[in-house]
Amino acid sequence: MSGQFLQRGEPAVVPKHVRTKLALQAGADLVIELPYIYSTQHASIFAKGAISILDSLKCDYVCFGSEEGKIETFYELIKQKKQLTSSINTSIRTFLDEGLSYPAAYSTALQKNLESSKLDVSLPNNILGIHYLEAIEHFDSRMEGRTIQRIAANYHDEETNHHSIASATAIRKILKGDNQSISDFVPSFTKDSIEEYINEYGALHFWNEYLPFLKYKLMTSTKEELENIYEAVEGLERRVLHSVLNCLNFEELMTSIKTKRYTWTRIQRLLTHILTNTSKKEIASILERDRVPYIRLLGMSSMGKTYLNTKKKLIDLPIYTTINQQNQKELSTDLKATHTYASMLSLDNQQKLIKTEYSLYPIIYDEKSNQFSRS
Amino acid sequence: MSGQFLQRGEPAVVPKHVRTKLALQAGADLVIELPYIYSTQHASIFAKGAISILDSLKCDYVCFGSEEGKIETFYELIKQKKQLTSSINTSIRTFLDEGLSYPAAYSTALQKNLESSKLDVSLPNNILGIHYLEAIEHFDSRMEGRTIQRIAANYHDEETNHHSIASATAIRKILKGDNQSISDFVPSFTKDSIEEYINEYGALHFWNEYLPFLKYKLMTSTKEELENIYEAVEGLERRVLHSVLNCLNFEELMTSIKTKRYTWTRIQRLLTHILTNTSKKEIASILERDRVPYIRLLGMSSMGKTYLNTKKKLIDLPIYTTINQQNQKELSTDLKATHTYASMLSLDNQQKLIKTEYSLYPIIYDEKSNQFSRS
Repeated sequence: MSGQFLQRGEPAVVPKHVRTKLALQAGADLVIELPYIYSTQHASIFAKGAISILDSLKCDYVCFGSEEGKIETFYELIKQKKQLTSSINTSIRTFLDEGLSYPAAYSTALQKNLESSKLDVSLPNNILGIHYLEAIEHFDSRMEGRTIQRIAANYHDEETNHHSIASATAIRKILKGDNQSISDFVPSFTKDSIEEYINEYGALHFWNEYLPFLKYKLMTSTKEELENIYEAVEGLERRVLHSVLNCLNFEELMTSIKTKRYTWTRIQRLLTHILTNTSKKEIASILERDRVPYIRLLGMSSMGKTYLNTKKKLIDLPIYTTINQQNQKELSTDLKATHTYASMLSLDNQQKLIKTEYSLYPIIYDEKSNQFSRS
Repeated sequence: MSGQFLQRGEPAVVPKHVRTKLALQAGADLVIELPYIYSTQHASIFAKGAISILDSLKCDYVCFGSEEGKIETFYELIKQKKQLTSSINTSIRTFLDEGLSYPAAYSTALQKNLESSKLDVSLPNNILGIHYLEAIEHFDSRMEGRTIQRIAANYHDEETNHHSIASATAIRKILKGDNQSISDFVPSFTKDSIEEYINEYGALHFWNEYLPFLKYKLMTSTKEELENIYEAVEGLERRVLHSVLNCLNFEELMTSIKTKRYTWTRIQRLLTHILTNTSKKEIASILERDRVPYIRLLGMSSMGKTYLNTKKKLIDLPIYTTINQQNQKELSTDLKATHTYASMLSLDNQQKLIKTEYSLYPIIYDEKSNQFSRS
């Protein structure tokens, strides 16, 4: 599970300790954090991070949602794609030169070179699925892919068109407004937890709440400091700087920065890295390792605990739960992400949230009694 | 006049455009900004900045407030002091080694070496006066010093002990509370302007309002970035970092950082530089020049205008009013200070305040009709 910031370059609506509990209640047996360095990245690095963790945990299968729904179609495409690698790469470069964004260039290049494939590579979850399977190959992992078809809601759908299924975007939109309830679209414990969080912490975490900090950061940074931020390329950071001066909310800011060259998501990720002060150097030094070098265990059920005990001897990586003196440096980017994530809360609620990072994990869930406890 | 941040390392209660008007109404004929780089410094650099500007403006006299009140006493001390420079410097080093703060070491060294002097060098405004007169000598200026005795209120007095005179600290304290009015201690136009500012901008500028930004900045900066901040020495920045985690207001933070080695003011100045992201490099490159290289004219009366016209040919420096493409780089630290200063306001009020920097100055005052106008 992603930590405080998500792949689309935005804060999670509620922090990871709340989502860990929801995942356990919804049936997950182990909740492992996908570190910030991988969770806020484009599909290829995101998938590598996730797959390397599952591989290190000696999993047998990885299952992902896709618009396609049949795993064979993915494996067929991967096979074809491998034979056409250089031709596809040439196409990608051509489309980039024509001014397309990277995801559009990638998707168009696949469409052009793999006309006979049954997989619709214009759809975002199919694309992510390709990256998962390619990451499995990259790590020479013995894991097999499986997929579940996504129905009734596309990720980007802003409206709810089905009586019980809605996209994350649509659910966020409901949470921002006052008119509709999310109760039709999420389990009741999710709705209750979100309400409880608002009562306890005073707010949900939307980008708009971070705008004063983003603006402050941009206006007090030197040109060099902004250029050193990860994903600051081709003067995009200067575009952000000029736009932020005249915008009164996050939506306005994004609209004002947006060009055909960069996707909405790509820009949000840059803003996230500016907000968290994540530099090119910081990311490069971590990505050099290729695999995530530790397991950050956020939560487990009794079943998950048994699984870990059984596989313990086979797992080569250290398993971290809380942050302590020994692992503080290795987990510093995620700790920084939590500090940034907390910044829009009142000072006392900030302290409460930071404390979870140091002392709350792993969250232990007894699935029979439906009770949480500490280890 | 200092810009948005003051010598004691704190934000001005209201921004410089408001204080410019107050100064003009109170009888000042020219209001020139002492740039951030000089205004947020210890007495020696603060005095050099101020004196270099007045000297560049071809002033005849500089008049300062002091506890002493007689200028001859100052000139006598300066004369004695020059003959004892090396002995005084040795004493300062000794007292610093004993753990005294710099101002305490300086004052104690003067007391020890200049026993026969009539000037009480334990008093802060007398010390500042010495620095003004030494700066006049340093620049070989033809200006003469004059002094007015401060009565009834010491700078640090927190309470008001006189029916109509109060220290800046005491006035700030009244403004923070709800119980007392400042009307006994300031002209009525000052009281009205402050109330108007609260109505228009929603708040006054106290350190406490910046604490969320200071905390955010500290928690997202690397060790190196913090070490590069001006006045971050001997690990003091690490002390700040650890303290900010556990403090819910600015007073608590300061009390938790404070040691005998560093004055309250010294620590506030470091916090100001952290907040504005002002680096050692940035300050060093500017201080190399010794003199302030431009005149930033914030306001003038008819008399002030006449003065400038008369002396125009003698003044070698460029006179800047608003910020524009030509001078933007030279004024960047002050622009950054205004952005930082604005950060605690709502986003629309931030825009309004930033606009003053670009287009409001110089503020022109007709002292006969008591009217303000634009140039």
